[in-house]
Amino acid sequence: MLVLGLDPGLRHTGWGVVEAVGNRLRFVAAGVLDTDAQHDLAVRLVTLHAGLIEVVAKYQPTVAAVEETVVNKNAASSLKLGHARGVIMFTAASAGMSVAEYPSKTVKRAVVGTGAAEKEQVAAMIRILLPGAGFYRSDATDALAVAVCHANRTATTAAIGRSMRSSIGGAT
Amino acid sequence: MLVLGLDPGLRHTGWGVVEAVGNRLRFVAAGVLDTDAQHDLAVRLVTLHAGLIEVVAKYQPTVAAVEETVVNKNAASSLKLGHARGVIMFTAASAGMSVAEYPSKTVKRAVVGTGAAEKEQVAAMIRILLPGAGFYRSDATDALAVAVCHANRTATTAAIGRSMRSSIGGAT
Repeated sequence: MLVLGLDPGLRHTGWGVVEAVGNRLRFVAAGVLDTDAQHDLAVRLVTLHAGLIEVVAKYQPTVAAVEETVVNKNAASSLKLGHARGVIMFTAASAGMSVAEYPSKTVKRAVVGTGAAEKEQVAAMIRILLPGAGFYRSDATDALAVAVCHANRTATTAAIGRSMRSSIGGAT
Repeated sequence: MLVLGLDPGLRHTGWGVVEAVGNRLRFVAAGVLDTDAQHDLAVRLVTLHAGLIEVVAKYQPTVAAVEETVVNKNAASSLKLGHARGVIMFTAASAGMSVAEYPSKTVKRAVVGTGAAEKEQVAAMIRILLPGAGFYRSDATDALAVAVCHANRTATTAAIGRSMRSSIGGAT
């Protein structure tokens, strides 16, 4: 399973692709899509879409995971972020991927073990969990963290399913 | 010139197409794209995109105009609206249209004559300005109002251009 993690933003959208085989994870690629703040909003959204389409075409992920946005800033910046997040989620869904959403705390807990982790802790753990991930910008690291969170969640669900089937003596 | 006016919303997105020939306006079509609140956010965004693509394919508007969102509610609802607005603006731009944005007050002033007009006044004026527009839901009427605003703005700009060219004795 190839998981595409996404950390949407109008100026910078982080993305990261992680391969999950059972409960083992492998780093595939990561990066950041940037838009020019001088351009019209509609043009920036088209840029984000085109960039993500390129990533999807190159790595062919099968599922996408996006961090749920914490709405703790003002309404104007939430609206702006919403534009980018909407286009990112639409692009993933229209490319045929299921799009899972995870609260920020769930992502941090999955990667660092505590929902109150700092950005640097998340980045450090990503480098440990995904050898080869190297040093990326925080938008990309955050996107990888969402991908790891989704991959772990899926692996755990599958393991629980296997364990339940074997405990009730069903064929596997 | 065929102008596509848009009033984006996650649950209901109003649209209206107006033909502008010089400073005369003609109603072409209007409607509302609805999404099912029971569906996942990404699915609803794909629904909005598909609906708008259908409208664009059918009426082939050349320019789009969207109302600027007044951010007077809370950040959570602004974020939600942003998702829909982002996909709507992206869809129009990726279909090759320029996408103009107008503040709500500018739209009301263009249609009713005052920036403080009520929704009902806007709807009543739209029926007067665009014979044949009939009785549509307010999302559609609001979208027609944005289209009228953009058409008038463009006609005025063209008229000023003509008047300036003739006053400086230029060839027209």
